[in-house]
Amino acid sequence: MGTNRVQIFDTTLRDGEQVPGCKLNTEQKLIIAEQLDILGVDVIEAGFPVSSPGDFKSVEEISKLVKNATVCGLTRAHKNDIKVAAEALKYAKRPRIHTGIGTSESHIKYKFNTTPDKIIERAVEAVKYAKTFVEDVEFYAEDAGRTDNAFLAQVCTEVVKAGATVLNIPDTTGYCLPEEYGAKIKYLKENVIGVDNVTLSCHCHNDLGLATANAIAGVMNGARQIECTINGIGERAGNTALEEVVMIMKQHPHLNLDTNINTKMLYALSKMVQEKMGMFVQANKAVVGDNAFAHSSGIHQDGVIKNRETYEIMDPADVGVTESAIILTARSGRAALAYRAKNVGYELTKDQLDALYPEFLIYADTKKEVKDEDIHILMEGHNIP
Amino acid sequence: MGTNRVQIFDTTLRDGEQVPGCKLNTEQKLIIAEQLDILGVDVIEAGFPVSSPGDFKSVEEISKLVKNATVCGLTRAHKNDIKVAAEALKYAKRPRIHTGIGTSESHIKYKFNTTPDKIIERAVEAVKYAKTFVEDVEFYAEDAGRTDNAFLAQVCTEVVKAGATVLNIPDTTGYCLPEEYGAKIKYLKENVIGVDNVTLSCHCHNDLGLATANAIAGVMNGARQIECTINGIGERAGNTALEEVVMIMKQHPHLNLDTNINTKMLYALSKMVQEKMGMFVQANKAVVGDNAFAHSSGIHQDGVIKNRETYEIMDPADVGVTESAIILTARSGRAALAYRAKNVGYELTKDQLDALYPEFLIYADTKKEVKDEDIHILMEGHNIP
Repeated sequence: MGTNRVQIFDTTLRDGEQVPGCKLNTEQKLIIAEQLDILGVDVIEAGFPVSSPGDFKSVEEISKLVKNATVCGLTRAHKNDIKVAAEALKYAKRPRIHTGIGTSESHIKYKFNTTPDKIIERAVEAVKYAKTFVEDVEFYAEDAGRTDNAFLAQVCTEVVKAGATVLNIPDTTGYCLPEEYGAKIKYLKENVIGVDNVTLSCHCHNDLGLATANAIAGVMNGARQIECTINGIGERAGNTALEEVVMIMKQHPHLNLDTNINTKMLYALSKMVQEKMGMFVQANKAVVGDNAFAHSSGIHQDGVIKNRETYEIMDPADVGVTESAIILTARSGRAALAYRAKNVGYELTKDQLDALYPEFLIYADTKKEVKDEDIHILMEGHNIP
Repeated sequence: MGTNRVQIFDTTLRDGEQVPGCKLNTEQKLIIAEQLDILGVDVIEAGFPVSSPGDFKSVEEISKLVKNATVCGLTRAHKNDIKVAAEALKYAKRPRIHTGIGTSESHIKYKFNTTPDKIIERAVEAVKYAKTFVEDVEFYAEDAGRTDNAFLAQVCTEVVKAGATVLNIPDTTGYCLPEEYGAKIKYLKENVIGVDNVTLSCHCHNDLGLATANAIAGVMNGARQIECTINGIGERAGNTALEEVVMIMKQHPHLNLDTNINTKMLYALSKMVQEKMGMFVQANKAVVGDNAFAHSSGIHQDGVIKNRETYEIMDPADVGVTESAIILTARSGRAALAYRAKNVGYELTKDQLDALYPEFLIYADTKKEVKDEDIHILMEGHNIP
C-alpha cells in the first residue's frame, strides 16, 4: 500500500444501523456485507457483538463470509466486550477489534465520572487485552473532536505503545469545522510518538452538515482511513457518506489520494441499502440522489446540451448512473425543448421552436414536469414531421 | 450592520425551485416568502422573471408582499431579461437585480463561443443597464469555482466600477474543496479594486457534499453573504442548506459571525417547504431531519441521559424541535430502557432491570423499534409497580 492510498472503513452495518427503525436481520446484513466486499472497501465494521445476541451472530456470519476486507467488531473498553468481540470474529480472515473510551472533558467528567489518568489507564488496558486476541487493534478516542489536543496526543501515544495499529479520531458530536478537524489530525501526526507506524482514521458525524468536509480535511492532513457509511446514514444526522468522499478523491486528482473502490457500483449499492433499511435518501442527495445528475433550469440545460462538462463535474456513468436527465419544466429553455422533442422524434426548425415555445411555457406553468407524452400533445396541430 | 453580520440570501424560490417535479404556484410561493421574511432572511430571490409568465407573476406578487427583506430577481446578461426583472420588481420596497455571465474557460468557450474580453464587456453592460432601474445590483460570475482567479478578479473589478453592489462567486458545478473556495474568496478580497465597498457572496452547490463547508470557508475568508435554500434543495444535488450554515455560525461563536435568523422557526419552515414542494429530506438530514436529535445506540443514550451535552452540540429547542428522542432498539442499553420505562410509569430497581434486560434484547432483536406499548407488554408478568 502506497502512502497515498486511503483505506475505506465502512460502518454501514454498525454506526449506519444505529438508526431508529432500520434494524437489519443477519441475512440482510450478509447480503450488504458481500456487496461491500465486492465494492472494494478495506474494512467492514460488522457490528457491536456484545450489544445483543442478534448482533453477535451477524458479526460471526459476516466473518465467515467476507473474502477480502478486514472484518471489525466494536467494543467499549470493557474486558467482556472485547472477549465477546474476539469470539464473534474468530472466523474472520482479517479480524480487527475496535475498542476505545471517551477522552473529552464532558465524557471523562459526566459519562465516566473519573480522571484523565484513569482514562489513559483503561484505554491502555483495553488495547493490551484486545492484542491478546488479534494483531489488528483500532483504538477510538470518543469525542476526540472536543478533546484537548495535547491530552489526545498523550492518550494516542500510550495506546500506540500498547499495540494499537489504527487511531480513530471521532468527531462524535459533529461539532468540528473542517479547518479545526484538519488541524487536529495535523497536530496528532506531529505529536504522537510512533504515529508513523500506525494509521490515523477520521470518523465524522454530520450534525452540522460537515461530515464529508471534515473527513477530507483529515486525509489532507495525514489521516489514511475514513470511516463512512453508504448514503451517510448513522446515529442522528449520520456519518460521512462513502460515495461522497470516494468521488471527491477521484475527481480531485491533485490531492494525490486514492481508494480501492469500484465507483461504478455506488449507485446500485446505495439503492440496495435504501431498500433494505427503509431509509431513503433525498432527491438532492449528492452523488446518489435521484436528481444528482438531473438538469432542470434553462440556463443549465442549454449548457449541458452544448457540452456536458459545462455543468457536470463527474460522468454519471462513473457512479453507475446511466444517463443525466434533461427535465422539462417551466424553467427550461428552447434548447432543452428542442433536445427532448428530438428524442421523441420531432426535428424542430428555429421558427417552429419559436412558435412552439410560448405555448410550451404556458403548458409547463400548469404542470410540475413536462413528460414525453406531453410533448406529443403539444405537437398536435403544429404539423411537425 | 457590523462587518461580522453575514447576510442570508435565500434562493429557495428560485434555485431551490429548479428541481424536477417541484414547481410551486404563485400562491404557494407567497406563503413561503412571507415565512422567509418573518424568519429574518436578508434577501429573497423570488424567481427568474423572464423565464415564464408564471415566474414573472410570482416575483411581482412577492415584491408587493414582502415587508423587510430585499426582493431579488435573476437575469442573464441580456437587456430584455433585465428590463423584465425590473418590471417584476417594481413594487418591491428593496429591489435587487441579480445579473451575470459565465466566466470559466468552459463557459466562455463552449457555452458562449466568445472571448474573455467580450465576456467582461457584456458583464459591464448588463450591470450598467440594471443600474438604470435599481440601485442594488448583484453580479454573478457563473462557474466562478472553475474560473482562473486572476481573470475573475479582473471581471469583478470592472463590474464594481460599473456599479455592482454585491459580487456573487458561485461554485456552479459543486467542484471546489473548502480550502480552494476559501482561498478564492481571500484572493478576491485582496485583489479586486473597490471590493471593500461591496459584499462578496458565496453560492455553492452540493454535487460532492461540500456546499455547506464551502460557504463557511467563504465567510471565514471575507465573504459576507451566503446564498442558500431551506433544506438545501436546488438544481441537481442542491445548494447550501440555510439551516446548516446558520446553525454553524450560531454554535461556533469564536467565528464571530452572526445572522438575523430566528432559528426557532427552522424546523417548522423546513417541514412547510417539504410539504409544499413534495421534496422530502432524508431522516438523517442535518439539523431538520427526523433523526437529527434521535439517539439510538446504547452508548449514546447512556451519555445523553446522564448529561445532554455528552452527545448533543445544539439544543433541539433552538431549531424548534421540542424534544430529543431516546429510541429503544436492540442497540439500546439498560439506561435507556430504565429511562423509557420510567416515562411510561415503571420505576425499575437495578435487579429488576438486570432481570428484564436480556428479555428486552431478544424482543428488540425481532423488532425494529421498541415502542411504549411494547414496554407494557414486556412488563407483563414482571410485577413491577
